[in-house]
Amino acid sequence: MPLSRLPEPPYYAVIFSSIRTKGDDTAYGETATMMSQLAAAQDGYLGEDSTMRDGEGMGITVSYWRDEAAIRAWKQHLDHTVARNAGREKWYQSYTLRVAKVERAYDFDRPESGFSKQAAV
Amino acid sequence: MPLSRLPEPPYYAVIFSSIRTKGDDTAYGETATMMSQLAAAQDGYLGEDSTMRDGEGMGITVSYWRDEAAIRAWKQHLDHTVARNAGREKWYQSYTLRVAKVERAYDFDRPESGFSKQAAV
Repeated sequence: MPLSRLPEPPYYAVIFSSIRTKGDDTAYGETATMMSQLAAAQDGYLGEDSTMRDGEGMGITVSYWRDEAAIRAWKQHLDHTVARNAGREKWYQSYTLRVAKVERAYDFDRPESGFSKQAAV
Repeated sequence: MPLSRLPEPPYYAVIFSSIRTKGDDTAYGETATMMSQLAAAQDGYLGEDSTMRDGEGMGITVSYWRDEAAIRAWKQHLDHTVARNAGREKWYQSYTLRVAKVERAYDFDRPESGFSKQAAV
C-alpha cells in the first residue's frame, strides 16, 4: 500500500493512536476493515495511512479529510458510532485521537522509483 | 511504551509516514534511535508516538511540538540535517511529512486500568 498523496494543504488529519486489548482479533479486524472502507466512501475523505500493530498492540492510523464538517459527519455516522462503542467496550486498552489542520506537506521518493523529489508546499 | 498524553491544544504535530528501503537495518536503527533521543531533548518537544514497521517496511511516527518555531529549530539542527540526508540517500524508498496544528484531542482508557474516560478538550 503506497503512502497517501494528497492535494495541497490546508486539509485536516485525524491522528488515532491506539493500544488493543488482547484477543477477539477476528471481530476487531472485520470491524476495522469495514470502518476503513466506510470512511473512504464518505464525502470529504481524502486518504489514510495505517500501520500494523507492534508486539504491544500499538498502532497508528491517520486519516485525511477536506474539512471539519466532513470529520464531524463521519464521527456521527451511525455505523461508526456503533463500532466506536464496541471499541471502548472490548477492543481498546487506550487510545488518543487528535484533530489537526495540516498546514504544510512534503513528499520524498527515491529517484530510482521514477518519481522525483517534490515538495507539495 | 504508553501513548503520549499531552497538554491542552493548540500544539503542533509532525506526521511522518515512511517506507524503508531494504537492508542497512543496523545503521538505520541506530540513527533513528539517536534522532528520537535528540528530538526529545529539544526545546518545545512535547512527545512522540511511533510504530514498528510492517512487512512492507511502512511505519508512522508522530511527534508533538509546542509551536512552529520549535519544529523549525529541530528541522535545522545539524545532526538532524545529516541524518535526513542519509535517509534520502539510503534508507527511505518514500516518505510524506505533514505539519499540522492540533485543535482538539481526546483520550480513552479502559476503566479497569485505573484511569477514567477523559476528554482533553
